[in-house]
Amino acid sequence: MNEAQQERRRSVRRDLHSCPEPAWREFYTTSRIVEEIERIGVDQLYIGRDVVDGDARMAVPDGNELEDWQRKARDAGAREDVLEAAAGGFTGALAVLEQGEGPTVALRVDIDALPITESDSVAHAPATEEFRSTNEGYMHACGHDAHATIGLGVLEAVKESDFKGTFKVVFQPAEEVIGGGKAVAESGHLDDVDHLLAIHIGLDHPTGEIVAGVGGFLAVRQFRAAFTGETAHAGGHPAQGRDAVQALATAVQNLHAIRRHGDGATRVNAGVVEGGTATNIVPGEATLEGEVRGETTPLKEYMSERADTVMSSAAEMHDCEVAIETTAEAPSAVSDDALAGVVYDAADSVPGVTSRLRTDDLGGSEDATYLMDRVQNHGGTATFVGIGTDHPGGHHTPLFDIDEDSLTIGIDVVTEAISQLSG
Amino acid sequence: MNEAQQERRRSVRRDLHSCPEPAWREFYTTSRIVEEIERIGVDQLYIGRDVVDGDARMAVPDGNELEDWQRKARDAGAREDVLEAAAGGFTGALAVLEQGEGPTVALRVDIDALPITESDSVAHAPATEEFRSTNEGYMHACGHDAHATIGLGVLEAVKESDFKGTFKVVFQPAEEVIGGGKAVAESGHLDDVDHLLAIHIGLDHPTGEIVAGVGGFLAVRQFRAAFTGETAHAGGHPAQGRDAVQALATAVQNLHAIRRHGDGATRVNAGVVEGGTATNIVPGEATLEGEVRGETTPLKEYMSERADTVMSSAAEMHDCEVAIETTAEAPSAVSDDALAGVVYDAADSVPGVTSRLRTDDLGGSEDATYLMDRVQNHGGTATFVGIGTDHPGGHHTPLFDIDEDSLTIGIDVVTEAISQLSG
Amino acid sequence: MNEAQQERRRSVRRDLHSCPEPAWREFYTTSRIVEEIERIGVDQLYIGRDVVDGDARMAVPDGNELEDWQRKARDAGAREDVLEAAAGGFTGALAVLEQGEGPTVALRVDIDALPITESDSVAHAPATEEFRSTNEGYMHACGHDAHATIGLGVLEAVKESDFKGTFKVVFQPAEEVIGGGKAVAESGHLDDVDHLLAIHIGLDHPTGEIVAGVGGFLAVRQFRAAFTGETAHAGGHPAQGRDAVQALATAVQNLHAIRRHGDGATRVNAGVVEGGTATNIVPGEATLEGEVRGETTPLKEYMSERADTVMSSAAEMHDCEVAIETTAEAPSAVSDDALAGVVYDAADSVPGVTSRLRTDDLGGSEDATYLMDRVQNHGGTATFVGIGTDHPGGHHTPLFDIDEDSLTIGIDVVTEAISQLSG
Amino acid sequence: MNEAQQERRRSVRRDLHSCPEPAWREFYTTSRIVEEIERIGVDQLYIGRDVVDGDARMAVPDGNELEDWQRKARDAGAREDVLEAAAGGFTGALAVLEQGEGPTVALRVDIDALPITESDSVAHAPATEEFRSTNEGYMHACGHDAHATIGLGVLEAVKESDFKGTFKVVFQPAEEVIGGGKAVAESGHLDDVDHLLAIHIGLDHPTGEIVAGVGGFLAVRQFRAAFTGETAHAGGHPAQGRDAVQALATAVQNLHAIRRHGDGATRVNAGVVEGGTATNIVPGEATLEGEVRGETTPLKEYMSERADTVMSSAAEMHDCEVAIETTAEAPSAVSDDALAGVVYDAADSVPGVTSRLRTDDLGGSEDATYLMDRVQNHGGTATFVGIGTDHPGGHHTPLFDIDEDSLTIGIDVVTEAISQLSG
Repeated sequence: MNEAQQERRRSVRRDLHSCPEPAWREFYTTSRIVEEIERIGVDQLYIGRDVVDGDARMAVPDGNELEDWQRKARDAGAREDVLEAAAGGFTGALAVLEQGEGPTVALRVDIDALPITESDSVAHAPATEEFRSTNEGYMHACGHDAHATIGLGVLEAVKESDFKGTFKVVFQPAEEVIGGGKAVAESGHLDDVDHLLAIHIGLDHPTGEIVAGVGGFLAVRQFRAAFTGETAHAGGHPAQGRDAVQALATAVQNLHAIRRHGDGATRVNAGVVEGGTATNIVPGEATLEGEVRGETTPLKEYMSERADTVMSSAAEMHDCEVAIETTAEAPSAVSDDALAGVVYDAADSVPGVTSRLRTDDLGGSEDATYLMDRVQNHGGTATFVGIGTDHPGGHHTPLFDIDEDSLTIGIDVVTEAISQLSG
Repeated sequence: MNEAQQERRRSVRRDLHSCPEPAWREFYTTSRIVEEIERIGVDQLYIGRDVVDGDARMAVPDGNELEDWQRKARDAGAREDVLEAAAGGFTGALAVLEQGEGPTVALRVDIDALPITESDSVAHAPATEEFRSTNEGYMHACGHDAHATIGLGVLEAVKESDFKGTFKVVFQPAEEVIGGGKAVAESGHLDDVDHLLAIHIGLDHPTGEIVAGVGGFLAVRQFRAAFTGETAHAGGHPAQGRDAVQALATAVQNLHAIRRHGDGATRVNAGVVEGGTATNIVPGEATLEGEVRGETTPLKEYMSERADTVMSSAAEMHDCEVAIETTAEAPSAVSDDALAGVVYDAADSVPGVTSRLRTDDLGGSEDATYLMDRVQNHGGTATFVGIGTDHPGGHHTPLFDIDEDSLTIGIDVVTEAISQLSG
Repeated sequence: MNEAQQERRRSVRRDLHSCPEPAWREFYTTSRIVEEIERIGVDQLYIGRDVVDGDARMAVPDGNELEDWQRKARDAGAREDVLEAAAGGFTGALAVLEQGEGPTVALRVDIDALPITESDSVAHAPATEEFRSTNEGYMHACGHDAHATIGLGVLEAVKESDFKGTFKVVFQPAEEVIGGGKAVAESGHLDDVDHLLAIHIGLDHPTGEIVAGVGGFLAVRQFRAAFTGETAHAGGHPAQGRDAVQALATAVQNLHAIRRHGDGATRVNAGVVEGGTATNIVPGEATLEGEVRGETTPLKEYMSERADTVMSSAAEMHDCEVAIETTAEAPSAVSDDALAGVVYDAADSVPGVTSRLRTDDLGGSEDATYLMDRVQNHGGTATFVGIGTDHPGGHHTPLFDIDEDSLTIGIDVVTEAISQLSG
Repeated sequence: MNEAQQERRRSVRRDLHSCPEPAWREFYTTSRIVEEIERIGVDQLYIGRDVVDGDARMAVPDGNELEDWQRKARDAGAREDVLEAAAGGFTGALAVLEQGEGPTVALRVDIDALPITESDSVAHAPATEEFRSTNEGYMHACGHDAHATIGLGVLEAVKESDFKGTFKVVFQPAEEVIGGGKAVAESGHLDDVDHLLAIHIGLDHPTGEIVAGVGGFLAVRQFRAAFTGETAHAGGHPAQGRDAVQALATAVQNLHAIRRHGDGATRVNAGVVEGGTATNIVPGEATLEGEVRGETTPLKEYMSERADTVMSSAAEMHDCEVAIETTAEAPSAVSDDALAGVVYDAADSVPGVTSRLRTDDLGGSEDATYLMDRVQNHGGTATFVGIGTDHPGGHHTPLFDIDEDSLTIGIDVVTEAISQLSG
């Protein structure tokens, strides 16, 4: 690797960072990635409806919202052919290198941003070095700009290496809403994959530290419950109302009170609530956006079934109706020891790597699990690799940033692991 | 009235006071009343199964409990023939005087005591004058000993008067548990009654004050809910349990949260709760004894339906079952102005009466409402008469007592009203 | 009264109806009323800061909101001098006639509209006869357009009558948010009033029916509670959060569960709730807009104190803080029998009156109670008069409308009553 | 080992099984153990107040209860000298063998029974072979009869072996209520122990399986909360009451709703609730017996602090008081790998051992953790050994029983491990 390469990587990362786009709206991002892939040159390139199973997408915003972001991307300089292919929220890309006999190896990176307003503090490098978000209110606060950059870097490095086999890089949209993983998994692109690597930067590990096989993925289900009762005048005819906010409150209390499970960790959150129209009107409508999680997929199912019962009984108790919709979902998954071992060993020889961990817990959810699950169910192995980076602010905070030196470390570790899997 | 009569009344009242018996267990009390009725001499006397509709009795204790009290009554000197007739909880009596052409007038008094331990304070006359409860833990803390005495007094006075018509006095059991009124009403004994008077002593009115037509009866339903789940070890397998105490707690919270009603006063109480067996076991059983009330019978129905929904939804929410049983019930009722007017006017001439009110609110429940309702539905009129008495302690407290002078005032007012109704 | 007069009244009412303005934003309405008052000619006219005690105003919207409506009013043709006086939300007006020796009599009418979208159904006269709301989303759905019209009509009629004394008509803003009554009361304008009449149209009484002295005003307090906790990632660190939505839910459940009171009716409502930012974030903020009411002012105080305790304990329970702010408040009040009697008698001779009631329950709240209270505390009497109108839709619904014939009936009844109070 | 020895062990176990005694009431059990120890012959024997720190005992029943069981034990044939020493609930024993230079090794077994009624099914060996519980309502349903037998067996075997060092066997009372461990730990008897073994039979492992180092002990705190409010008549004066059952219900709901913790498993249980006196009385008293647990001691502390806040805020919310008392408590603990390794290796050569596990989770609480903690804090090592047994019913069920063949396997494994620790 040379200076120019390193400079190009930084430049790509900063370009993506300055134009953060949320789930299914990564129009500019996809265009920029496609440009880089074409510069590198690959054997196959999939975009638009060819990347995902369209019916399996979750949490896709409505048409107006999509068109707004498409327009912004056009203004930012996105390529018209990519915009056209991605219309309707078909963002993301998949590049394939065919380098002869050998295993099929895949790398998954995610590319979407978060609805967080980026800091403009002088302590925040993107602000002082002029690549802060230009989409006000949105931010790459979880490092997916770095993920895309590493994906491109590995693609280029593998092409230049003597790796034998097939190599695929999937640039997945909509991870933050747990909406894209299932759609990529169900596309079938990964069904012939022998070894899948997914990566994440940071996670409280410093620059130079590698986690070979992250574990502790919580299976998750997110839902939206709409309670419907009937309004009434709260002074004159309180009993003529059917109070949707009472139903909501009973549901919230009892969701948290779902019994803990002896088989492992569970989670529940009533994240967003809203209801009622006026102080003196019995509220006839209320909504709850929440989630349940489990250390394993069955534990998530346990929580999910209990949550549905709690919400429907709470509605019934207060003479209301409730409509519950699953807005996002992901299973749990486990990194394979053998493949993690390959990464662990590969990292040993990579310059800049100062610390290696065989495993560590994520303690959150990730829809990479859909892809890991898919590959494992088809007889392959998978691992989720943590690439340390000094990050001043925590993930999902306005001050999050990465140490750009970790880009090269990450690219080198993944490339080295892939080369050890060569046919 | 002479001194001897007054002395006999006091003596009867003190005898009854010293032997308080709770609902459906008024064996000694019934025996004593029957003795007095026979001494007075009446045209018809009903006891045992002839007083009530046996199927309409509510809150009847089990056989062992009844037999225990029957035994106590025998030991206290109850007559064997009365005990035999009353076996199985068929306490109470009904006396009839037939004095020629004229209206049928009835008086209802209640005769049961409360599960309260009577005070032995030197400030408490029954303690110092040696007629304190000999059934430890039970007490005439609501004046039903006085009611029975007044019933007997009026019976004797009407017999001696030139009243023309038929006069019935019903000595009703089980008022405190709202268990006897319905059974008397459904016996049919009152279906030919033109005018029904029911009385209550005290109610915060002083000696000498008469309330001609008490109102504000709250319709009431008492219930017992048994929640059933499944036990489990709370440490090892908490989710294998189905928690009856969680169901109970959710029910209690939401019972109180039943929306107030625009049409009038409602009440709800979760009076007695119990559940679980050990600190470390998920509770599989829990019970709730509670009640709902309404200013009118439809308001009680509203509360009752909502309460059932709350309890069954709470059970369902926590994967439990619930069995709900109505243990007692009474409608609301209204005193007829016309009949109350007769009492009001009659009281004017009675010695000792110093104050007359046309009406006042009871603010509680009374199963005399079943009888009032029955008479009114058959075309008669009814009123509930308050007879003031200076009472040192409040109703249902260990220091409750009456001013015995009010016995004679009560007898005289009721007798005078009846004489004004004479044919 | 003649045809022309009747036509003018209808025209004023329809003009006001077509330009509904919510609390403290009645800029056009005030301008139009001032024009009419000036046409009629009065001895004194107060507008702007001279009508109210500015510090006692409640629920005043912020500056931008006020300016928006001021601008709309200007566009609709409001007079610049009135707009200037009313700037900052100083809407409303007070007109005084001085007609010699005699009592001081006042009439209070309210003038604000509601945030309800008016129906455009062919069954709705304002839609077909082209005076439907031009302020989309706002509507005179409670008849305050009629109230203002009656106020003007009575002013004109009294001026033309031989009434001796002083007559004041107060056109009060912001009744719907219970925000204006206190400010008018504390202005002192009513401190010399001997007899106060307030009116309301409709209330489920048909055209031709008059209620001389409405009762059953519920004292009310409206509040806004802001719960503050701390956000955290719901998957990774749920216990690091302090959950404001859990505090909110506990508060809502227990607000409804405040014990009913033996002294009379109480109410509670959690009307509007909102909290949280994302499905997977422990919510750090939540707000509750609610109200409590009581049949009497002390009952409202009872509910209010219990509500504060519930909300602060709920916050504490979940390690949150809560800031509670009273946004509006009104006492209960009672119509004086004597003054109501004057209205009752006066109505007898008014053409179109077909039914008279001495009293009926409002079953809601009204900040006219502040004015009634004020007058009564200064030795005067007050009554709240109901003027029946056939209204197709209920109050506060998109189909509410009045029968314009009732305008004249209302004006005549009130004028006749005032004339009977003449010196 | 010979047939006679095996027969004696079975006989002792069946004798103890037939006379189950609950926590601090193991009078007969202690007497029987002392007899056996004396038969074996030891260098020191501690009983009564010499075994425990009396002040550190938890959950000791009251004097009457203790005397009842002492009397039963006397009737069953307990030795008078032991009964005298154990008076006041000072049950348990500690035997010491001094066999020269070498490490100090200790074995802890627990001896108390459970308040469970033993099955009399023909499928239940103790019923058909005539050693079913003679203390009706109590049962050795957790195998502590086997534990005591194994403790005696190991004592005898070590004495007969060439083990060099000091060997202590502690027969601990009151494990089931988590009441005895702390008191033994604080006695100081274990402060010089180099290696501590504690054992448990069964735990869903079959006969022949050994778990060398059980883990997953949940730290636990049990508590009793007494809520105090004020009674009132629920019909007449509901608001005069302060409702302890409402406080209880709010507490139960919110205890279960304590947020899950990112650091590991937590538990909460509201095991026993009781409150109120009558259906129509606002309940003035209510109690809650519950517990919280954590995978680690800090997690238990987290739950404990949150629980206290929930209960005190729930009381405050309903204008009640609450007194919270800790009735039992135990830390978490970890088996030392090195010592577990000794057991694992030792088991390899023991006849009857067919399966060995290095570790497995208990998933519950055990106050052996106090002893393990104590030894580890004084520089020693500790392990908790699971000894498999085929058990037809689950632990703490009426059908629990052991396979008596596992007694010898357990004795042999523990003895062999001790011999490998010999000086």
